[in-house]
Amino acid sequence: MPKTSILDIAEVYRAAEVLQNVARHPKLIGPTRLNHKAEIFLKPENLQHTGSFKLRGAYYKISQLSEEEKSRGVIACSAGNHAQGVALGATHNGIKSIICLPAGAPISKIEATKALGAEVCLVPGVYDDAYQRALELQKEYGYTLVHPFDDPYVIAGQGTIGLEIITEMPDVDAVIVPVGGGGLISGVAFTIKTIKPNVKVYGVQAQGAPSMVESLQEGTRKRLKSVATIADGIAVKEPGVNTFELCSKYVDEIVTVTDDEVAAAILSLIEQQKLVAEGAGAVSVAAAMFDKVPVEGKKVVCLVSGGNIDVTSLNRVITRGLVRSGRNTSLTVILSDKPGQLSRVCSIIGELGANILSVEHKRNNVSTEIGGCAVDFELETRDMEHVHYLRQGLTEAGFTVAD
Amino acid sequence: MPKTSILDIAEVYRAAEVLQNVARHPKLIGPTRLNHKAEIFLKPENLQHTGSFKLRGAYYKISQLSEEEKSRGVIACSAGNHAQGVALGATHNGIKSIICLPAGAPISKIEATKALGAEVCLVPGVYDDAYQRALELQKEYGYTLVHPFDDPYVIAGQGTIGLEIITEMPDVDAVIVPVGGGGLISGVAFTIKTIKPNVKVYGVQAQGAPSMVESLQEGTRKRLKSVATIADGIAVKEPGVNTFELCSKYVDEIVTVTDDEVAAAILSLIEQQKLVAEGAGAVSVAAAMFDKVPVEGKKVVCLVSGGNIDVTSLNRVITRGLVRSGRNTSLTVILSDKPGQLSRVCSIIGELGANILSVEHKRNNVSTEIGGCAVDFELETRDMEHVHYLRQGLTEAGFTVAD
Repeated sequence: MPKTSILDIAEVYRAAEVLQNVARHPKLIGPTRLNHKAEIFLKPENLQHTGSFKLRGAYYKISQLSEEEKSRGVIACSAGNHAQGVALGATHNGIKSIICLPAGAPISKIEATKALGAEVCLVPGVYDDAYQRALELQKEYGYTLVHPFDDPYVIAGQGTIGLEIITEMPDVDAVIVPVGGGGLISGVAFTIKTIKPNVKVYGVQAQGAPSMVESLQEGTRKRLKSVATIADGIAVKEPGVNTFELCSKYVDEIVTVTDDEVAAAILSLIEQQKLVAEGAGAVSVAAAMFDKVPVEGKKVVCLVSGGNIDVTSLNRVITRGLVRSGRNTSLTVILSDKPGQLSRVCSIIGELGANILSVEHKRNNVSTEIGGCAVDFELETRDMEHVHYLRQGLTEAGFTVAD
Repeated sequence: MPKTSILDIAEVYRAAEVLQNVARHPKLIGPTRLNHKAEIFLKPENLQHTGSFKLRGAYYKISQLSEEEKSRGVIACSAGNHAQGVALGATHNGIKSIICLPAGAPISKIEATKALGAEVCLVPGVYDDAYQRALELQKEYGYTLVHPFDDPYVIAGQGTIGLEIITEMPDVDAVIVPVGGGGLISGVAFTIKTIKPNVKVYGVQAQGAPSMVESLQEGTRKRLKSVATIADGIAVKEPGVNTFELCSKYVDEIVTVTDDEVAAAILSLIEQQKLVAEGAGAVSVAAAMFDKVPVEGKKVVCLVSGGNIDVTSLNRVITRGLVRSGRNTSLTVILSDKPGQLSRVCSIIGELGANILSVEHKRNNVSTEIGGCAVDFELETRDMEHVHYLRQGLTEAGFTVAD
């Protein structure tokens, strides 16, 4: 194992000491049935204070500031978990925190950050504008900038998760970790590989934001022009200098998952494990569910890094997941406009084993022939096969099912 | 403390022994900010195998059957958690289980029960019809009926939760427990009051299904004509004989919560704790949040009994909770039908600090004067005060906001 000068394992142990009475330490959950070929356990950092692991690194970083730095306060730029981690870490340490946010950030995140004691600075524009403003304020007032991932103290704080996993499950074969800027996996991989080099550490990025994957492939840090994924917490355009180096040295492989796979993972976590994960938090589970990394016959821990998903997004993810797995189906049936047709369709649907969730009768539908009408059904079904069977049954009964 | 002949505390310890390597034992979660006046912790039985505490009682009951009873198999009637508890308990013990379900039960619950190895018997009609069928089958084939709550072994199994709470948090002041038929609270209250009589044990029922509350008030078991609540897991018409006696002796008070309070509790658990609870599982949290029992200054454990909520219902609960707390708002604005009006309304809404989630422009609205049109907005807002401010601002700008 090559050595790094960025981090010393003693730093991770010091961080664990500092975080002992600050962070929550929920037990591993499992074994789950998320992939029948493996024993999949979850490290539920969504149950952490502020709903994500970010508190660990931010808190440890803040705890290590000098008294003089503490007296001036800290600043960070984030629309999400890092903001809340810094806010709580600072407030807990009795120091001032300023969080720069893009002005269009969700109201719920702004309110949550304020509630944790931070001063919120809304900056017109996008993330990069807010980051520039944070740098300006840092210079002007002498605040310490708490970087979301590329800081050795922050990385050491996240590394405490690695310690906890191998302490609680000494015979773990592999750990799967979400990757955005790379702070979390750098800390976890460095810690695990230093102590138990035989444990595999895999990273997962969103297919729409594969900055670390491409950087590792090219052997140099690469900046993506744009990123697009429902896993917004890991939509990072460029890895850090330190995190790139640590990932190069300590991570076995980084893979990608699609947004649909992430949505399916979020839905499975809700239904099977009763846990709310955000997109970024669920990519590790998606990788395990869809065999993106070798899990067969292994004892695997998926790090669920956070649960701060907007409930409106959660509604959309649930709906999408149900439709894609064939458990909710929308069907449009064309009826001739004479009495008794609607009741006949409804009874056939019932006989074919589907439950009707809603019916919308649109007599004005312009795409339908005069004298006919379209009825939209939302149905609860078992799976895709059942949907097929249902369409076939309706067609055989003489109805036209639109696509 | 009066004695009961139904249960012996040794039975609860035996159940704990049997369940040691069967049940999950997640740590208490907290302190939370669910009620700022108290330290509220959660006992997350939604994280239990099968998503609810029911496994404990069912498993213990099945484990205590004679070899001859085991060879014949067990039967139960349930559309929900008890079904899954019995199915898993039986399969784990290598014996046959038959679950009678009303034919209209959600497909997801039927599939989950089958997946755990049970034979599912769908009975036309409602719960009572399915129960009658279970009794018939029991007589015909000699199956053992596993009652969902009124069985001493089942109650002893649920009592293990009480043991775990007082072991993990010896200085707990009060425990709040959901109440349907009363099996869970009977076990928990009996155990806690036997070992630590000073700890308060409160029960919570849904306002639409207060069978135990009314029975205790009248001093005799009462059967409700009908029950209606989103907390369907505790919509029980009549307490059991044993559970009524145990609740009379060991429970300090049973209170009720409304469906809106339950929905608010489910939403808070998702947003603040990243936990999915079903209605029945969240009534304890609702009682703590809305000060239904004396929690001020106390260290309180809310038992979150289960998380098996249909994701379609979850979507509805989330939507309802957001609207009621003023974080989602639907507004209909009447515009005169001339160019530029829609853009003006949108920009005013933005200036007043709300985010537009959707816009529906209905020119055909029959309730609008000819020459005018109604636009429906769905908005993200901060709270009820913000909604009021927004309506006022639009009115002052000359627009008519419909109710």
